[in-house]
Amino acid sequence: MTQPSQHPSTKAELKYEGKAKRVYATADPEQYLVEYKDEATAFNAQKRGSWAGKGATNNAIAAALYPKLEGAGIPTHFVAKLSDTEQLVKAVTIVPVEVITRNVAAGSFAKKLGLEEGTPLPRPVVEYCYKSDALGDPLINTDTAVALGWASEGDMARIRELTLQVNAFLTPFFLERGIRLIDFKLEFGKLPSGQIVLADEISPDTCRFWDAETNEKMDKDRFRRDLGGVEEAYGEMLRRVLS
Amino acid sequence: MTQPSQHPSTKAELKYEGKAKRVYATADPEQYLVEYKDEATAFNAQKRGSWAGKGATNNAIAAALYPKLEGAGIPTHFVAKLSDTEQLVKAVTIVPVEVITRNVAAGSFAKKLGLEEGTPLPRPVVEYCYKSDALGDPLINTDTAVALGWASEGDMARIRELTLQVNAFLTPFFLERGIRLIDFKLEFGKLPSGQIVLADEISPDTCRFWDAETNEKMDKDRFRRDLGGVEEAYGEMLRRVLS
Repeated sequence: MTQPSQHPSTKAELKYEGKAKRVYATADPEQYLVEYKDEATAFNAQKRGSWAGKGATNNAIAAALYPKLEGAGIPTHFVAKLSDTEQLVKAVTIVPVEVITRNVAAGSFAKKLGLEEGTPLPRPVVEYCYKSDALGDPLINTDTAVALGWASEGDMARIRELTLQVNAFLTPFFLERGIRLIDFKLEFGKLPSGQIVLADEISPDTCRFWDAETNEKMDKDRFRRDLGGVEEAYGEMLRRVLS
Repeated sequence: MTQPSQHPSTKAELKYEGKAKRVYATADPEQYLVEYKDEATAFNAQKRGSWAGKGATNNAIAAALYPKLEGAGIPTHFVAKLSDTEQLVKAVTIVPVEVITRNVAAGSFAKKLGLEEGTPLPRPVVEYCYKSDALGDPLINTDTAVALGWASEGDMARIRELTLQVNAFLTPFFLERGIRLIDFKLEFGKLPSGQIVLADEISPDTCRFWDAETNEKMDKDRFRRDLGGVEEAYGEMLRRVLS
């Protein structure tokens, strides 16, 4: 750890290290620096890997999507892309609730309900998990988040509203680029003002993307399920986002 | 299976056999006969047992509670107690969603969230599971129930409203009898008119009851966890309900 300098984008204290990112304080207490790592993990970090350029690809995808979401009226933590692997973001307190939106049954959801992977859902399903690696991110609901003090009822209502707005924006955005948005995970943070903003990343690490023509998987399931071509899929997703 | 007779309470076709009850058609298409069995199961029927009088005890507890809930404005399927182990109920289509209300963290909820069993919750938590023995009754939410066609949004809102009314009635009812209502599972059914009514049973099989003085368990956890005194606890619960 280095000491804060006067340059706002200089890394200071490491605030948080996740599986795929590091978050640093900066000289400006209202901003954090996020560094995207090349590490990939799955199944609550029981499976681990990495490849050169992963961090840069996810950083580029997220940095391209956040301004588009802002343009659609969704407040985010994003400030600026600083380098290949770094972003400047607003300093938020992360709400410890992962928000999963599902348009098509896949993964653990399909398995637990006995549905064939790929079954379309007639309306989006929004699920909540408690963000805790130690507990394996257990499925919870709004009542539990409020009862255990992780968010207020108003915060949870706003998080749901923003999540559905993100889905309503991203689903056609990706479809125009030949990609079906199957499901995705969001995280939200709270500014000192109390405003809830979209935080964390949107990338092939956090979304299921299927090619609209072939249903080929273009996301972390290629790593999770040892399908090969992981790096190529992430690169192709970046090309489509920028197209 | 016997043929329907003209007597409304004569068992006809077996409609459904659950782990602790059998449901029969009667000569009246608007009524079913429910027979309480002596069998006890736990952990999705991986653990099995039985004791003489269990069915009669649960039937007596449920038959005593249902009219009290009706008196509190909660519509139920209950019509009449017919015998030690039999009840006449309204014929409903069961909504395949189990509704769990938690006032205190216990069981699987405490375990998955890393909470000490017995931690009070500052507000009730209502959870939903898909009623499927084959899938192990997986935890779901309202979105999933609606998306998969198990209930309408209006039905789910009504089910939640009735559930909170049941909790608001039963919590002080049991406390006056020296019992803490820790958590409980409800099921709901739909009448041909579309009205949602409380169905299934309320008993030590479906509730966690703790003695208010000693926190001694007075419910199926005595069977689940091999604590002994199961029959005595069920009998004591019947005495307190009737007191």
